[in-house]
Amino acid sequence: MLLHLSTWQEVEAYLQQSTGIILPIGSTEQHGPTGLIGTDAICAEAIARGVGEVTQAIVSPTINVGMALHHTAFPGTMSLRPRTLILLVRDYITSLAKAGFTKFYFINGHGGNIATLKAAFSETYAYLEDIQIPHAARVQCHVANWFMCGSVYRLAKELYGDKEGSHATPSEVAVTQYIYPEAIKQAPLSPEVASGHRIYSATDFRTHYPDGRMGSDPALATPEHGKQFYELAVKELSTGYWEFLQEKT
Amino acid sequence: MLLHLSTWQEVEAYLQQSTGIILPIGSTEQHGPTGLIGTDAICAEAIARGVGEVTQAIVSPTINVGMALHHTAFPGTMSLRPRTLILLVRDYITSLAKAGFTKFYFINGHGGNIATLKAAFSETYAYLEDIQIPHAARVQCHVANWFMCGSVYRLAKELYGDKEGSHATPSEVAVTQYIYPEAIKQAPLSPEVASGHRIYSATDFRTHYPDGRMGSDPALATPEHGKQFYELAVKELSTGYWEFLQEKT
Amino acid sequence: MLLHLSTWQEVEAYLQQSTGIILPIGSTEQHGPTGLIGTDAICAEAIARGVGEVTQAIVSPTINVGMALHHTAFPGTMSLRPRTLILLVRDYITSLAKAGFTKFYFINGHGGNIATLKAAFSETYAYLEDIQIPHAARVQCHVANWFMCGSVYRLAKELYGDKEGSHATPSEVAVTQYIYPEAIKQAPLSPEVASGHRIYSATDFRTHYPDGRMGSDPALATPEHGKQFYELAVKELSTGYWEFLQEKT
Amino acid sequence: MLLHLSTWQEVEAYLQQSTGIILPIGSTEQHGPTGLIGTDAICAEAIARGVGEVTQAIVSPTINVGMALHHTAFPGTMSLRPRTLILLVRDYITSLAKAGFTKFYFINGHGGNIATLKAAFSETYAYLEDIQIPHAARVQCHVANWFMCGSVYRLAKELYGDKEGSHATPSEVAVTQYIYPEAIKQAPLSPEVASGHRIYSATDFRTHYPDGRMGSDPALATPEHGKQFYELAVKELSTGYWEFLQEKT
Amino acid sequence: MLLHLSTWQEVEAYLQQSTGIILPIGSTEQHGPTGLIGTDAICAEAIARGVGEVTQAIVSPTINVGMALHHTAFPGTMSLRPRTLILLVRDYITSLAKAGFTKFYFINGHGGNIATLKAAFSETYAYLEDIQIPHAARVQCHVANWFMCGSVYRLAKELYGDKEGSHATPSEVAVTQYIYPEAIKQAPLSPEVASGHRIYSATDFRTHYPDGRMGSDPALATPEHGKQFYELAVKELSTGYWEFLQEKT
Amino acid sequence: MLLHLSTWQEVEAYLQQSTGIILPIGSTEQHGPTGLIGTDAICAEAIARGVGEVTQAIVSPTINVGMALHHTAFPGTMSLRPRTLILLVRDYITSLAKAGFTKFYFINGHGGNIATLKAAFSETYAYLEDIQIPHAARVQCHVANWFMCGSVYRLAKELYGDKEGSHATPSEVAVTQYIYPEAIKQAPLSPEVASGHRIYSATDFRTHYPDGRMGSDPALATPEHGKQFYELAVKELSTGYWEFLQEKT
Repeated sequence: MLLHLSTWQEVEAYLQQSTGIILPIGSTEQHGPTGLIGTDAICAEAIARGVGEVTQAIVSPTINVGMALHHTAFPGTMSLRPRTLILLVRDYITSLAKAGFTKFYFINGHGGNIATLKAAFSETYAYLEDIQIPHAARVQCHVANWFMCGSVYRLAKELYGDKEGSHATPSEVAVTQYIYPEAIKQAPLSPEVASGHRIYSATDFRTHYPDGRMGSDPALATPEHGKQFYELAVKELSTGYWEFLQEKT
Repeated sequence: MLLHLSTWQEVEAYLQQSTGIILPIGSTEQHGPTGLIGTDAICAEAIARGVGEVTQAIVSPTINVGMALHHTAFPGTMSLRPRTLILLVRDYITSLAKAGFTKFYFINGHGGNIATLKAAFSETYAYLEDIQIPHAARVQCHVANWFMCGSVYRLAKELYGDKEGSHATPSEVAVTQYIYPEAIKQAPLSPEVASGHRIYSATDFRTHYPDGRMGSDPALATPEHGKQFYELAVKELSTGYWEFLQEKT
Repeated sequence: MLLHLSTWQEVEAYLQQSTGIILPIGSTEQHGPTGLIGTDAICAEAIARGVGEVTQAIVSPTINVGMALHHTAFPGTMSLRPRTLILLVRDYITSLAKAGFTKFYFINGHGGNIATLKAAFSETYAYLEDIQIPHAARVQCHVANWFMCGSVYRLAKELYGDKEGSHATPSEVAVTQYIYPEAIKQAPLSPEVASGHRIYSATDFRTHYPDGRMGSDPALATPEHGKQFYELAVKELSTGYWEFLQEKT
Repeated sequence: MLLHLSTWQEVEAYLQQSTGIILPIGSTEQHGPTGLIGTDAICAEAIARGVGEVTQAIVSPTINVGMALHHTAFPGTMSLRPRTLILLVRDYITSLAKAGFTKFYFINGHGGNIATLKAAFSETYAYLEDIQIPHAARVQCHVANWFMCGSVYRLAKELYGDKEGSHATPSEVAVTQYIYPEAIKQAPLSPEVASGHRIYSATDFRTHYPDGRMGSDPALATPEHGKQFYELAVKELSTGYWEFLQEKT
Repeated sequence: MLLHLSTWQEVEAYLQQSTGIILPIGSTEQHGPTGLIGTDAICAEAIARGVGEVTQAIVSPTINVGMALHHTAFPGTMSLRPRTLILLVRDYITSLAKAGFTKFYFINGHGGNIATLKAAFSETYAYLEDIQIPHAARVQCHVANWFMCGSVYRLAKELYGDKEGSHATPSEVAVTQYIYPEAIKQAPLSPEVASGHRIYSATDFRTHYPDGRMGSDPALATPEHGKQFYELAVKELSTGYWEFLQEKT
Repeated sequence: MLLHLSTWQEVEAYLQQSTGIILPIGSTEQHGPTGLIGTDAICAEAIARGVGEVTQAIVSPTINVGMALHHTAFPGTMSLRPRTLILLVRDYITSLAKAGFTKFYFINGHGGNIATLKAAFSETYAYLEDIQIPHAARVQCHVANWFMCGSVYRLAKELYGDKEGSHATPSEVAVTQYIYPEAIKQAPLSPEVASGHRIYSATDFRTHYPDGRMGSDPALATPEHGKQFYELAVKELSTGYWEFLQEKT
């Protein structure tokens, strides 16, 4: 059930059955010479909707722009500052928690979002307790990173070995190829690719990762791989969502 | 050209041709018993992409959640606070302006966003001048509301007269029916519908507009009407975008 | 009744009769070679006090500095950032709402304030509901722009035609001449005056409007005109205030 | 020279002679049963204008609402939060410093503003250095409290002894009587008046100071006294302003 | 009783006896060629712990970095912006007030903290009333500056006369020598030392106080003096704390 | 070299040799019936100073209060909100970066700080680039968690097996016993200890972890263990610091 394709009365009915919601969060950032700028949002959205179908959970609109400041030296990258993203998450959850939602399951497509999301959850719990909404203490948020699913990780290892890398990876590129086969890109990729440098400022990042990739060979990706990753992630995160719903509050 | 389906190198090439970008902004809010919660985002996104095709402009991901605090007494509504939306817009523009974009054309689907967007533009101009990015003084932002297009307005008047109302209108519902024919909703609509009460707090809004509509009869909407509105808006806003690009800086 | 010339016990008594208050808001910004920097505050304050006399409403001190960032390339202009003005308005209303005021009628002298004021109202309604002050949901704010009164508009049209322009207009200059006849200024005004360029950054504004005027000929203003504008605005806004008081909460 | 009664070209000319400006700041808060709510703003504005006349300095519009949170349990009090006032002061100074002003002399009528003003100055110096406006390091701000002038203090002591108290004092009430003789108030004043309790929360304040006065007998005030206080303050602060202008930067 | 060396159950027991807490606050800033950068934190911490022993009060961890923006042109200085320090203090007090503490006695080692601390107290009282924690109105905060104790002042006068100065003073250096005899520094001190220039921006400060001292001769300090100052401050502030506890709420 | 026991001239000299600095960050939060509230700050500070001695690096004062909102239902816990901690870190780094420091090595004693610290680093890199301090792009921050050192983890496993748990662990308690043998606490510990529940709001945390421990048996801790942990952490983090210094910028 997609929130944006529902009416408020349908949401009201849904809340009689469940107070859980799935929120896809991605990023809009460079993904190397062949990766789509929307990769992280595309993957998160597709997988979140898949999980929504399996679990009958409602799925919110996607947070398309996340915390990608370190990629902003590449054109096309868009980023929120961490403090902005914290406020955004606080506002999202506050709106929904006032209506009765208590279980917030973020399906995330971007490693760079994790820290800020966790900070945002802490900020939000405190805010909800401060403003004393009913059931404030029962609100629970969780970030589930599809790319960290055990099954996904194992398949990526099997298919790509250490050419999976850590940004503009063949696994995430494969998922976008599966979702948007019409947008598969070709571009020269140097055989040598930087890796191992930690992430600091945007300028520093581009200096050390001149084409945007971090240790990956996205040329290995295929739409068929993408389908496999998609299905593994949907399956594993559906289980994760059910377990999350069952956690005591 | 869709930003999320592009690579950073394609954006780099685009910037050689144009420094303009189209940003769809909607809302996630109740739209009466039959209107989709995503109505404003759906319309803005579809029309923005149509304008992007006509004008060859790049289109950013959609801002799905806007300023809808007054609708938050209805379940399913999500809203940013104005100060959060201002920061979001500032962050979006700052990211893109550093990369060389100077013309920001927001295609907006929600009246409630307009004030905060305009405030955000002012905040952003000052911020960019403060941090002294190159060409800061040349950055220009514009909000174009598809539902205020003259051609759209005239057709709505002709088709619906005063049953167009001002929220959950048949014209916007029609556009969503055209985009998502599979999500056309049926629900009882009382023949009497509230209108004329100004917008204040969320509680006040729901008291005065108990089913969420403001003076509208969305049952008049058809997907065919939606196609007409869509085409009129795309045409008129494409012209608007070209004129905006030509404004001197 | 002027708040600053009252005692707290008089305010306590007033609140037994009415929970409405009028708040003048202006700006401190360039108004062309002959317009006073305080024009918008002067007009708003004078008209608000006139309305206060007619309606027996209490009138707060004037917000002298508003959102005028686009004028800051001219010396003497002072401006709040939108986020600051939002906080200011939130703080004003919160102070007064805790004491029992529920109807906030802003009489505004500056077009550039409107967007931020509306954003501030939304921010404030949500804040008051969050902190759960008594009657939070009944708080209502309204911005009434004296220069948009129908009667004012018609007289300006009649007297000045298209030489009214949109900034440093003869109508507002006339009101200041009526209020401060001792401060009527003379300065050369080029017969050609810029118009039609949209408002972006401060630097952009000064480039396109080099003497500060936007399409206006303030030399047409007279103190007698000012008196007429003043009286029309007071009359129309007094009616507006009464209607506002009668709106259901 | 009053900023609000000047044109931007007059300000431009002024800046050739001086980069100093006087900014009156008051408060809008209860002043006991007979003191005007606007007392602090009225005094600061009148004295600042007097100093402006003596020193030929430009005087900005008055900050009418300051930091008076501890008085907000009395109706009619309006207050900014400290963080809001800091932003307001930062915005005021930034606007003016960009135009070339470097010497900011705040004439203050309210003890409760002092701490926040000083914090705001520190915040602003750092901000101006961060955004690297020309002459950022030369910007100097000073708060001059008229009620702490030695000459004022001595006269108050002489006229009222320990009945001067520390809030709703006869000296400040006297100045308002001199400025607004038409607004002299009569109300019963209990002979016993609280004093000596430190200032904490708004509720605590009203509990300990039930009629709003702090150890004062404002019934001793006369308009003639007010004239004397006014003249002493104008004289002493004019000297203070000249000395401030001469401080090296 | 030191909070950091206690368990939560010991704190729970303490709260049965007292709701008071002592919070040391210092600064990390240059103190001239021979003064320790941690001077203000060292003094505040030592004296606060001394007062804690005498009064059996719990003592919180030290706020080591305060508001020292004006010293930041000297390497090694660290500072919070006033708005950050306000939030820090608000967060500290909110955490503790929710647990039942109501009396917050800040023992302060740095003049530059005072204004921001006072602003923070006002901000916090309002926040606690907004979020309606139990006993919000009874929360009381006080800043006690050890260097302003009458007994300390008199001894400094007696020992150093006008060579006490106002920054990097022999009295504070003496206390650090008493606490950390192993860190007594020797460095050339010019016999001439600047004084009398007010504090503005960091750059301005260093221009006028090139070695960091303000009118002081810290070479006069001895550890024995430090012991005397320490004991006087502990004694006087212990009395101050008891009186603070007894103030009615 | 301890920053607080240095003079600014010593720091100036240090910067000729190195631009690195170590910043200990802990927390002030409940650590079960026998763990000290200051555990995380005590461990971080001691280990950071140890690393400072080994590497000759300068060590800043300790951030004693971190992000511990989830522990605030236990008395004695103090916490910053994530947004406050982000500002604090931004201010710390900005002060030091302006003086020439570029390598910021945070030695952290609390898992709950990690997410917010990482968010703070991103926020800070962007801020420094915005304000264009020299070498902004070369600033690098790193968080090193002593309790995640491989050598520490292995020893804890060996000594305690799964009784190490994840909060109020015997390993961290042991370190505090080594540092403060005089503050070793005795209290009854139920043999059953909760574990496995994720961290959400403060109320939820206390419900699920009623005595504050998370799966740990701190009764196993001894000061001798603490010495071992301390030495392992100092050794491993010293190496980590040297590697960090050598990373290219």
